[in-house]
Amino acid sequence: MRMKPLILISNDDGITSKGIKFLADIMRELGEVVIVAPDSPQSGQGHAITIEDPLRYHKSDLFSDWGIEAYQCSGTPADCIKLAKNHILPKKPDLVVSGVNHGSNTSVSVLYSGTMSAALEGTIEGLPSVGFSVCDYSYDAEFEHTREWVKKVAQSVLENGLPQGTALNVNFPKYNGEPIKGMKVGRQAKGRWHEQFDERVNPSGRKYLWLTGKFVNPDTSEDTDEFAIEQNYGSIVPTKIDLTDYNYLEELKGVWEE
Amino acid sequence: MRMKPLILISNDDGITSKGIKFLADIMRELGEVVIVAPDSPQSGQGHAITIEDPLRYHKSDLFSDWGIEAYQCSGTPADCIKLAKNHILPKKPDLVVSGVNHGSNTSVSVLYSGTMSAALEGTIEGLPSVGFSVCDYSYDAEFEHTREWVKKVAQSVLENGLPQGTALNVNFPKYNGEPIKGMKVGRQAKGRWHEQFDERVNPSGRKYLWLTGKFVNPDTSEDTDEFAIEQNYGSIVPTKIDLTDYNYLEELKGVWEE
Repeated sequence: MRMKPLILISNDDGITSKGIKFLADIMRELGEVVIVAPDSPQSGQGHAITIEDPLRYHKSDLFSDWGIEAYQCSGTPADCIKLAKNHILPKKPDLVVSGVNHGSNTSVSVLYSGTMSAALEGTIEGLPSVGFSVCDYSYDAEFEHTREWVKKVAQSVLENGLPQGTALNVNFPKYNGEPIKGMKVGRQAKGRWHEQFDERVNPSGRKYLWLTGKFVNPDTSEDTDEFAIEQNYGSIVPTKIDLTDYNYLEELKGVWEE
Repeated sequence: MRMKPLILISNDDGITSKGIKFLADIMRELGEVVIVAPDSPQSGQGHAITIEDPLRYHKSDLFSDWGIEAYQCSGTPADCIKLAKNHILPKKPDLVVSGVNHGSNTSVSVLYSGTMSAALEGTIEGLPSVGFSVCDYSYDAEFEHTREWVKKVAQSVLENGLPQGTALNVNFPKYNGEPIKGMKVGRQAKGRWHEQFDERVNPSGRKYLWLTGKFVNPDTSEDTDEFAIEQNYGSIVPTKIDLTDYNYLEELKGVWEE
């Protein structure tokens, strides 16, 4: 008899979020699940790790009805994966999944994403890893329309693995009453956030600012994650931990090396 | 007469660090300098941004002897760049430089690096951007051996610009008594950190952990940043904000799209 695969789950919205419970509910059909997730929301944490402060973690019974071992950790999503792999888990997981995030991680948002930082940390540790997000920022986001596709992507990665150094960044449209049409594989769209700072004054008369902004995407090409989402498809972007710009490398060598 | 270029400086070690002062001292020879940097050290912050808390900033007179306008900010390195470009600066800077970091940002460390997140944020904002680091983690790190090369790299970027979507990740060896041999252009080495968690007990009997680790690099290829540093060269890696794995994209399309 084949052993059930070991699946490690984390996220950046924290262990009490609706999205991680949804993900755990799917993953328990596919294998033995362990959850190691932040004890509070960590959105926008990028690939932060905790090196100047101590880390704490303890067992949580939030998932005990499902027989799932779960831990909440004071650190970032990337910390959670490091802690799970090198301290908590008795063996190497077969799959790392992160999410399902309440909010989009398409286009340049991948760089700010705690969800994807957990997945990319799995990739750094040599583990097949996937980050899942739904383009719905509300605490009570709808996830059910993605269930079949989340399961298919996870099954596919369990069966086929992923190239060394590459994770999957999977995004789904916000539920609009229609079923998702399927999955499209594409590239990260060249959009960005146009920031604004909303200035306020506190009761003591001191100024503070809120970072706000609007996502702007001039990149309307049909091979992008943004296009897939607009068309009510799920989007899969294979996402690398090697940031080297190989196209520019040779030109730059010409500048610096005779 | 040509206007002097406007150069924006940030870092992740904080506005009081030795490395940012060194960088400002070089940049003031090349243009008009404005500093917007974290008010406290932010190492390991990756590409974190502050969205759930307010941001604060105020003018600092740390660099007033040099006639340099400086601001310290409660946020992350990426916040500092966003704040500078969209709130503080009267016009678009011609160059963004970050650092000089006290410690290496070669190989996979680029993903955890606050220094590089400031540079990559500049790139997202469409600005030519460079992160500088010296492989010496001490507060009192030696920087003088890199002066000539930091200046040359900044001058080159001011003159030639950079491709859209690409920053430079520049690392220098720790001072070993010998001058740096020159600059090598290469790729991010495929190394990683092997983490260990050092478990302790506080006076109340509760466990806590310190994340520690050792950098391990099985990638001994001569075209890497790690090799350049070992040979006492400065390393330049052109570094992209598009994380798409284009090599794997087509194969993955075959799996998901008929």
